[in-house]
Amino acid sequence: MIHKKRQAQATPESLHQIFTIPEAPDSTLGRIEAEISQNLNGFLANHIVATEKPLAEIEKDFADSKIPEQPQYVSDHTHHLLDKLISQSVHTSAPSFIGHMTSALPYFQLPLSKLMTGLNQNLVKIETSKAFTPLERQVLGMMHRMVYQQNDGFYQQWMHSAEHSLGAFCSGGTVANITALWVARNTLLKPEGEFTGVAKQGLVKALKHYGYDDIAILVSERGHYSLKKAADILGIGRDNVIAVKTDTNNRINLSALKAECKRLKDNNIKLMAIVGIAGTTETGSIDPLTEMAEIAKQYQCHFHVDAAWGGATLLSNKYRSLLAGIELADSVTIDAHKQMYVPMGAGLVVFKNPESVAAIEHHAEYILRKGSKDLGSHTLEGSRPGMAMMVYASMHIISRPGYEMLINQSIDKAKYFADLIDCEADFELVSKPELCLLTYRYVPQVVQQYLQTANSQQRSEINDLLDQLTRFIQKRQRESGKSFVSRTRIEVEKYDGSKVSVFRVVLANPLTTNEILDEILKEQKLLAAESLQFLPQVLSKVLKS
Amino acid sequence: MIHKKRQAQATPESLHQIFTIPEAPDSTLGRIEAEISQNLNGFLANHIVATEKPLAEIEKDFADSKIPEQPQYVSDHTHHLLDKLISQSVHTSAPSFIGHMTSALPYFQLPLSKLMTGLNQNLVKIETSKAFTPLERQVLGMMHRMVYQQNDGFYQQWMHSAEHSLGAFCSGGTVANITALWVARNTLLKPEGEFTGVAKQGLVKALKHYGYDDIAILVSERGHYSLKKAADILGIGRDNVIAVKTDTNNRINLSALKAECKRLKDNNIKLMAIVGIAGTTETGSIDPLTEMAEIAKQYQCHFHVDAAWGGATLLSNKYRSLLAGIELADSVTIDAHKQMYVPMGAGLVVFKNPESVAAIEHHAEYILRKGSKDLGSHTLEGSRPGMAMMVYASMHIISRPGYEMLINQSIDKAKYFADLIDCEADFELVSKPELCLLTYRYVPQVVQQYLQTANSQQRSEINDLLDQLTRFIQKRQRESGKSFVSRTRIEVEKYDGSKVSVFRVVLANPLTTNEILDEILKEQKLLAAESLQFLPQVLSKVLKS
Repeated sequence: MIHKKRQAQATPESLHQIFTIPEAPDSTLGRIEAEISQNLNGFLANHIVATEKPLAEIEKDFADSKIPEQPQYVSDHTHHLLDKLISQSVHTSAPSFIGHMTSALPYFQLPLSKLMTGLNQNLVKIETSKAFTPLERQVLGMMHRMVYQQNDGFYQQWMHSAEHSLGAFCSGGTVANITALWVARNTLLKPEGEFTGVAKQGLVKALKHYGYDDIAILVSERGHYSLKKAADILGIGRDNVIAVKTDTNNRINLSALKAECKRLKDNNIKLMAIVGIAGTTETGSIDPLTEMAEIAKQYQCHFHVDAAWGGATLLSNKYRSLLAGIELADSVTIDAHKQMYVPMGAGLVVFKNPESVAAIEHHAEYILRKGSKDLGSHTLEGSRPGMAMMVYASMHIISRPGYEMLINQSIDKAKYFADLIDCEADFELVSKPELCLLTYRYVPQVVQQYLQTANSQQRSEINDLLDQLTRFIQKRQRESGKSFVSRTRIEVEKYDGSKVSVFRVVLANPLTTNEILDEILKEQKLLAAESLQFLPQVLSKVLKS
Repeated sequence: MIHKKRQAQATPESLHQIFTIPEAPDSTLGRIEAEISQNLNGFLANHIVATEKPLAEIEKDFADSKIPEQPQYVSDHTHHLLDKLISQSVHTSAPSFIGHMTSALPYFQLPLSKLMTGLNQNLVKIETSKAFTPLERQVLGMMHRMVYQQNDGFYQQWMHSAEHSLGAFCSGGTVANITALWVARNTLLKPEGEFTGVAKQGLVKALKHYGYDDIAILVSERGHYSLKKAADILGIGRDNVIAVKTDTNNRINLSALKAECKRLKDNNIKLMAIVGIAGTTETGSIDPLTEMAEIAKQYQCHFHVDAAWGGATLLSNKYRSLLAGIELADSVTIDAHKQMYVPMGAGLVVFKNPESVAAIEHHAEYILRKGSKDLGSHTLEGSRPGMAMMVYASMHIISRPGYEMLINQSIDKAKYFADLIDCEADFELVSKPELCLLTYRYVPQVVQQYLQTANSQQRSEINDLLDQLTRFIQKRQRESGKSFVSRTRIEVEKYDGSKVSVFRVVLANPLTTNEILDEILKEQKLLAAESLQFLPQVLSKVLKS
């Protein structure tokens, strides 16, 4: 008998089935699900191909622009996903994947995410989220308290108040930063007399009313790119996000900041916000927040702290003081999907003043009616899933002391790795870890010595070559698939403040061990040796010149 | 022997466990997961309490602002979630929940969502998403083709081009609308001569350079509230989103639109965009898109179509023509988490011109480098989960003809319900369904007759009373927990264009049957009878006056 391949068909019955008949445990998708539930890391290690396939090759599998006319059985499609998508995805939770801010997740997040999908709540309004609304308000309250440490009475008064909000939950740090600066802009250019406010009348009339030639935002040159994006969106303009120089420790230079404030004032450009960074994306450095708050006060501008990465450090009693002054901020961005180990899509901003969100409030006839507690009346996004549940569950299951252990471990691990790099003659530690981030590069010892005495032109030439070397090692290491560090370019003071390419490492994955870090350096040394086969002529030419 | 309650403790070992040891199938969370997998609707029906608890009561369970110092076992916390959160959530997928745009989901979305969480990709860049990046580009290509129907060559050329994008995937329609209008603003106020563009220099310098007194957006009075929000965020101002009158059929009045265009021009206010609606949120009506495109062309402005709800209708060969003219739009918003039956958090905007996104492009040193295919270089959001996989899977498993059946069924069901209402002497159909939305209200027949002959003042008084009745019925029906319709206020031409409160119904859930619709009307009649016990005196007073 010839085996005939089954062919799926779209019929009213088959459609009814996909909405009413569960995936069988022994179906392909059912088996995958069981495998993920029982051994996620094993599943990923087995199904994700380690060595890198060129993107152009992968794209061939995703080239059809027609929506299929022929339905697929779930099992057939699952095989397709395994074969073409999952095999070529990135093992972001691998302990040797230390290049970006993704990490392993606690196991309980997996079934919870399925529960969230099954409930399919929409947090924009109470009518489609009910208890999820007070839950999200509580999560915002907890995060607010973590930052601002107000007393019980404060939270009793404001946490569930319809006309107020302690913050806004959103999909991530970028939206959180935009929301904070949106509030700052609308508060600065608020209604006054006949002027009904920037929210209603727009920026042109607002600046005219207040008599400013322009408005600006100050942040260190390590500021996240989302701040320029925010300025673009908000109509302020990217050029009006002015990058202030950093010191050798990658923190904002306070004299330079003060000078900028004065320059703006002298030019009738109103300073809208100063942004402090608590954990820069590239080096994990923390700005001097207390001093910045003081300057913001003096210039009567909004003080925002971008703690998307570093905010969770507040959960550590040992390291909390690194962020001293954060409680002086008018708004603070924190990503729960970073150091709070929640899946992608959980960011938030908290506001010191529960009335701040009034500046961005909006209403509609069918939802978000005045006086309602609908969360959508003061969020940038509209419909949103119940991600707050994932943060809530993590805070209860891991608890504050559990988070402290995780945070402390990460910082200790970064210090270990920094020491390791320092002990290696052929590596140069470029930024020391304040939190669990650091940057470094491979520089043969002889070149390091040369760099110390070289003149500016010579240093620049050598650094160009070293940049090539860094890019080569990083790319080859990524392609070989055992481990991953990222790379970036940062200004280094000892090289006349010019940008050099560096390896960037984020040590937040609790499963990353010291042995893995040893291995990563070893692999880089081997790759460097490989590349030095063709680099030395060039290098020696420069060294001789 | 006294049973001692176990107490969880945060130790390095317990933390290591939650990252490495899966939830056991017989654990509380494991059992819940199995229940959801085997019978989601049963699980929700069993665990969500039907009758409504006052929000103030629920808030008491979410009142603690302290992050716990004491960890909870996963099983204990799961019991807590079941008891306090899930029991008081909303059964958004119930077939009798026809008040909002949430629906039942296909079963395969549940295990897929878990897979997505397990993979925890970050779509902002290829380094954390690899094959998910071409997959998302393919999904955008498919949606683009659904709207614009270009040929194979077009998609081969642009779908995977690093410097181009056919759209932007995002968390929902609001972000999609903001993104579209952001592109429109930046394209209108682009660099020219010494002016380097609004993205860099901001709105004030941009308007000065181009010599406009202001810029504005035109949309019908049925436009979604996110458009005003977008105008606020983008610095244009909510007042500059000008609401154009609709006709009796809830479509934009073209003469009024033309008059507005002229008025703006005469006042040196540059028309930035005309927004057409393909499926208004309140009534599901579709604007005359072809004619609007013609007007937009005449005034050389961006033409955006908000098809967040109605866009999926393009999958139906039978009803596709309802959206004729959408292919003339410069940008189109579509929510996959609405009529494409994907879980919350999947919206997108497509652009006719693959070069449009250049207007909002941005780069950073550590990611989104020039020439990279990182999706984050032209999205409003930064880090984003791999939701595009859910859309991709649905398009393959359901297929275009499957979607057509779902769409057609929904529209047919709405027509059935409209007929049902029309046949009931005591109900008034306020807006007929074009798609699967309709609005109506309860008006005793005698009052309907009176309204026909009443003068304007009398009509207004009666309508105020009827508004109370509508609110009463809707609230009681929601509270009793068997079914849910929403309510809104819309302008009704025959009542002198004044706003009246109406029931609003969305019939997208494939599991909603005609019998359920019959029941919902019956319940409303009973509730009306109940309320008329106290209303008649007031009514008769008005009727007699």
